[in-house]
Formats: sequence, C-alpha cells, structure tokens
Amino acid sequence: MPVDRRLGVTAAAGFGAAGVSCGLKQSATPDLALVVGDPGTVAAGVFTTNQVVAAPVVWSRDRLAASADARVVVLNSGNANACTGPAGEAAVLATVERAATELGCRPEQVLVCSTGVIGVPLDAARVSDGVAKAAAALDRSGGLAAAEAILTTDTRVKQAGTRVAGGATVGGMAKGAAMLAPALAPPQATMLAVLTTDAVADPAELGEALATAAAATFNRITVDGAQSTNDTVLLLASGASGARPDPGDLAAAVAAVCSDLAGQMLADAEGGTKVVSIQVGGAGPVEAALAVARRVADSPLVKTAVYGGDPNWGRVLQAAGTAGVGFDPGLVRLEVAGGPGAAGIEPPAGPLERLPLVSQGRPTGADASAAMAAREIELRLHLGGSGPWAEVRTSDLTPEYVRLNSEYTT
Amino acid sequence: MPVDRRLGVTAAAGFGAAGVSCGLKQSATPDLALVVGDPGTVAAGVFTTNQVVAAPVVWSRDRLAASADARVVVLNSGNANACTGPAGEAAVLATVERAATELGCRPEQVLVCSTGVIGVPLDAARVSDGVAKAAAALDRSGGLAAAEAILTTDTRVKQAGTRVAGGATVGGMAKGAAMLAPALAPPQATMLAVLTTDAVADPAELGEALATAAAATFNRITVDGAQSTNDTVLLLASGASGARPDPGDLAAAVAAVCSDLAGQMLADAEGGTKVVSIQVGGAGPVEAALAVARRVADSPLVKTAVYGGDPNWGRVLQAAGTAGVGFDPGLVRLEVAGGPGAAGIEPPAGPLERLPLVSQGRPTGADASAAMAAREIELRLHLGGSGPWAEVRTSDLTPEYVRLNSEYTT
Repeated sequence: MPVDRRLGVTAAAGFGAAGVSCGLKQSATPDLALVVGDPGTVAAGVFTTNQVVAAPVVWSRDRLAASADARVVVLNSGNANACTGPAGEAAVLATVERAATELGCRPEQVLVCSTGVIGVPLDAARVSDGVAKAAAALDRSGGLAAAEAILTTDTRVKQAGTRVAGGATVGGMAKGAAMLAPALAPPQATMLAVLTTDAVADPAELGEALATAAAATFNRITVDGAQSTNDTVLLLASGASGARPDPGDLAAAVAAVCSDLAGQMLADAEGGTKVVSIQVGGAGPVEAALAVARRVADSPLVKTAVYGGDPNWGRVLQAAGTAGVGFDPGLVRLEVAGGPGAAGIEPPAGPLERLPLVSQGRPTGADASAAMAAREIELRLHLGGSGPWAEVRTSDLTPEYVRLNSEYTT
Repeated sequence: MPVDRRLGVTAAAGFGAAGVSCGLKQSATPDLALVVGDPGTVAAGVFTTNQVVAAPVVWSRDRLAASADARVVVLNSGNANACTGPAGEAAVLATVERAATELGCRPEQVLVCSTGVIGVPLDAARVSDGVAKAAAALDRSGGLAAAEAILTTDTRVKQAGTRVAGGATVGGMAKGAAMLAPALAPPQATMLAVLTTDAVADPAELGEALATAAAATFNRITVDGAQSTNDTVLLLASGASGARPDPGDLAAAVAAVCSDLAGQMLADAEGGTKVVSIQVGGAGPVEAALAVARRVADSPLVKTAVYGGDPNWGRVLQAAGTAGVGFDPGLVRLEVAGGPGAAGIEPPAGPLERLPLVSQGRPTGADASAAMAAREIELRLHLGGSGPWAEVRTSDLTPEYVRLNSEYTT
C-alpha cells in the first residue's frame, strides 16, 4: 500500500497538533508536542517490554489498560523521565493535570510519552508551561510542527500516511535513531510513534490493528539491539470522517504507515549509511526464521561488513549458526540485491536483481560489490528446509555511530 | 592462583612446539604452529556450538569423541577452512596424514585448528609443506614461536602458565581478538587455545577440568557477541612430570590459565581500549544473573559509553531490563570501580574502591568519571533479589573496531 510522507498526525480529520519549545533541550529547539483528538476520540497503544520502564510509559499503559477513552497525547523530547522515581511520577501527574485543564478533558484522557536522557529529573514546571503554550498553538495543520518537536538525535522528520478505501485516512509521526530495537506487546515499543485516523473504529479493532502492525514492523527493525525504556506507539481514532472501513483495510493501512515509519527510522539511524533487509526462509516455523534473521541483523561483524560494502557471506552464515536453530550448512543459499526499494525505504526503480552469493553452502564466486555499495541492500538467506520467510531490517554499524554514542549521554 | 605469562605450551615437560611460515598469510609472517606431546600424551577438547562449523573442528571433535589418544596439534592462521565443502575436508586429511608421517604417529592422533578467512579454499599443499617445516623446527622451548604463528588480527602473543602443587605445570597459548563470544561445550570456542600439562591425569579428569574451566572463563567473555565457526580449546597431558596432582588442584590450575588467556584476548580485542567486568547478582539463579550480565556486556550503547568514559548507568539498567529476567528497578544497586585488576587483566595495585552510581534504583549523583577513565573497569549490578553473582567480561566498542571490521575480510 503506497504511503505519502507529507501526511502526518493532522492528515486525518478531527485532530489538532502543535510543537513548541519549553526549554528541556539546551539547543532551544522544539521539545514538546501535543496531539489532540476531538471529543469522542478513542485510543490504543503498545509499549516497551523492558523491565525498566519510564514513568510516562507506566501512566499511559495503565490508562489504556483501563479504558480506550483517551484523546490527548503530550510528548516531550530532551528527557526520558526514566529512572526518576516518585518525582518522575509526580511530573507525569502534573503534566496530565495541566493538559486536562488547558484542553477541557479529564486527566485520565491524557497520554504521555517522553524521550531523551535517562535518570535526570524532568522539569515539571517547564513541561507544564510547554503544555499551555502548545495548547494555545494547537492547529488543524500542526502535524509537522509536532513531528519536529519529538526528535532527539534524529536528523529528519518522520511522517507517513495513507488513504483507506471508503474515505478514511491514517497518518502518523515517529522518532528514533538509536537505542532502537523495539519489542512491543499489547499492552507492549526510544522510539515513539503516534498514528491518527478519522475512521470510525471500535477500540478492540484499533488495538488489534496496532498490535499486529507493530509486531510486523517496529518489532522487526533494530539499530543496535537495545530495547528502550520508553518505546511507545499510539493510535487514536476520531471517527470524524464518518467512514467505517473494513477492519482488514484499516489494519492494512495502519501496517503500511507503521512499516514506512519504521523504514524512515532506519534510514535516519545514528551514524548509519545503509539499510539492510535480512530475509530468512526454510528455517522451519516463522519464529525460527525470525530468530535467525535477528541474529544476523544484530551481528556487529555483518553490520560493519555492510558499512564497508564487503559481501562477507561468511559472517552472515556464522551469525545464522548461532541462533539456536538447527540447519544443514550444506543446503544454505544466500542472495544479495542492492538498490532503491531493496530494504523498503525508497520506491523501487524496477525489479530487484538477486545475485547468488552462496549456493548449497558454497561460495558462487559472484561479484556482489555493486549490490553491496547500494544505500538499500537485501540479504536473502534460505536455510534449505521448509517454512515461511521472515524479515528483520537493520542499519550498518559505522565509526560515526560509535562516536555519537560515546559522546552523547542518553 | 597466580599465573606467569612467560609460560607457554612448552613450559610443561614432554612437549615440543614450533611456529613457521608456510605462505597462507600475505604478510609472510608465521602462520603454522605445531604442538607435539611425547608418546603416551592424552587430550581433551571443547569446540564451538555454532551450527556452521569448519572442517578442522569436525575432524578434531570426532577424534576426541572417539578417543583421548591424541598427541599432535597442527594450527594454521590466515585461513579458517570454513564453508569450504569437501575440498576443506580433504585439506584436513592431507594435513593430518603429513603430520603423522613426519612425527611417527597415526593420523587419528593429530588434531587440527584453523583461523582466518572464511570460505576461501585452504591451500593443502602449503599447509602440508608447513607441517614438514615445523616438524623439522620442533623444539622443547618452541612455545613462544607457536604462540606467534597462530595470531591473526591479534597484536600480542598470549601465553599463561602456572605450577600445580605436587610438581606439575600447566601452560597454554591462545589467539582471538574479534568474532569473539565463545560458547563452548564438551565436546563445545575464532578463539583458539592449546593448554599442555605434564601432570599424570585420566582423560575423563582432563575433559572435566577443561569443560568446567571453559564454561567459567572463555564462555564468559565477549568482544562482539559473534560466536565463531572455529573456536577450539585443547588440553594435552604428557604425564612427563610423573606427578599426579589432586584433581581439584589441577582443575584450578587449568581454570587460572584459561581465565588469564581469556583476559589477554579481551585486552587485545580489535580496536579495544578498555576491558570491563560486568558482575550481576541478586537475579535469582546463576543462569539469570549470567543472562543479564551478557545483555549488558553485548550492549553497543554500554560499550560505546565505556569507550567514551561515560558512567552511563541508564544504559546499563536499560540493557539489564531486556534479558528476560524479572526484577524491581526500585531495588537496583550499581557500583563502579576502575584500575588495575578491576577486570582481571593486570595485578591489582591495591583494594578496589567501589563507587555507588545507583542505589534503590536512583542515581546517587556520585562522580565516577575517574573510575570510567581506567583501562580496567568493574560494573557491579545487584538486582535486589537473592542469588549468586555471575561475571561476563567484555571490551569497549570503538571507531577502530568498526574500521578494522569494515576493511578486513574474516
């Protein structure tokens, strides 16, 4: 399903948004975003499964576990409000109370997301002032401003949207460039994403569409294998279009937007120069294929080889062999393709040409240097058994990633 | 137990060794090592548990599964003889036959280890010539020459030995600087290590001492989480001292040598500037503590923070929370110490001063920058429950690691 990256959280009818600066970031760039659905809006969410979760995650997860009746999302960048103890919980309460006052709703209808430095007390007064400032700036076309205000080490705004058959729209925004290997569960995702739709939909339908989409998209990307304390994906439905799309169509639209936002995060990965799609098949059950794909995607040796443009199939096989999945190395086939669309980032320029690197466990001698030089790369590994294909996407590991993360305190 | 790094594979009586150049490495530096025990020598081994194993691993594992009667080890660097199919197996056979001819033993008494590039045919003729050359150069004090010949990206020779009460000696050599996260099992490490002893010992006793030592040392270090196709650790006993030490004493000596060799590998990790000991306690069973320690040790965000000298406790807690082990973040305590001996590399200069970074889940505000600037660092994380401590040691992740592995084909 084609997506349009000009469509953000205010592409769907019934939503306003804003992005302002409230002084959390030293750079004085925007750091507080507000997304507000008209009265009647319902919400679903998936959250990080890390044992260590930030105060805003606890609040938002508890609210959505109790009720889908939520229509306001306050997001701040510059501070994760994680490992901040009772003061962190108090900051969340102050935030939702101020938002409720400013926007005429109940505090329980306000969800909160934070991203930034861990373990530093969140300045609740600044956030509260920021909420008031954002409420005053709320605009039916404020999606882009909101998308800018949630960025941390991201270098680009991430938006995607699509139209659903029957007249509804799904749009969304995301941030995330490192500490990025979401493992979201219902109620499970430092990436943040907020999707909105003007479709009429039951909360259960929204929840299922979001959980399914997150499992197949955000949960299948990894920059550094590091699952955050703050990952959150929210989907709000205003019903303002009056259209009630087929649940399958709505789910497909949500999945398409999530997939594109996930790809945009990889394309903007800290220090990253390339995106790789690791596809594994013939591993038996899909879980086994996924386990192998994850091992390959998280291998520093594979990721540095990708950075170097080295078709190092030996490292791919070496990593695949450590996933706890049995296979006969003599039956392995590995193909590589490079070019736009090979990892689902840009529209493909044409059909991908797949070059066999390994056949029956042996190197073919093919020269894959051109494919490996591309910005998008597909590595397709068949283990010789039966079973479906599974895909995990990742970025390369570069000196710049190391530099950024040795100098920047998350 | 103190070790002496001047003691290698010929420190124990009854062993000769040699290191020669046979043309596998383009650099023309030594690339073939031979370790030979006197007749009557018995052997034990642990090997990689990767699904993809090199031809020499298959051979050596099968030999030791059938019999402990093995007294010759041929080791080559420059080529891993992995993913090389039937030609790789034929190269192993040619190697052991030549060694048997040169040294007057049966081919079944010859063990083989390879390390280097994956997927490139091994030049069996060069190896065979090298075996003859090494056999001619065999020397009772050839341990250091052998230790030099097994190096790949290593920058330093790795040897360690110790004396066992009762008059026996244990000595050993090792190589390994990346693709380093051994998971050895009996019969389970591209690290290679060969230990020798002149103790009189039963094969079963040797096997148990080696498996126990490997599990507690080589299996608890990681440079990049990448378990090789070729990892092998061998222990040969000549009995030449005539001393039969207490099995516990012999096992402790083997463990001490393995632990020191493992530390030397970390100290020479590709691009590494620091070694960190991650110690986790209060996680319940030791397996849970170990799982948490491994997640922290393999976290690129923790490893880049260590490189940057950043006491980033938030990244430690974030990584700990993803190990699948339940704990109450509010009870967590994290201490840091820096200085010689903090990670078991150099002899300690004195008692370590441990600085609490996190107490009851909250930052103490302590300034740990001095500790984090040390070459050896200890991170001690207590999760607030009961249960024993477990340790995993790792190196930092540096721009140089990325550069080396994007330019070097393994």
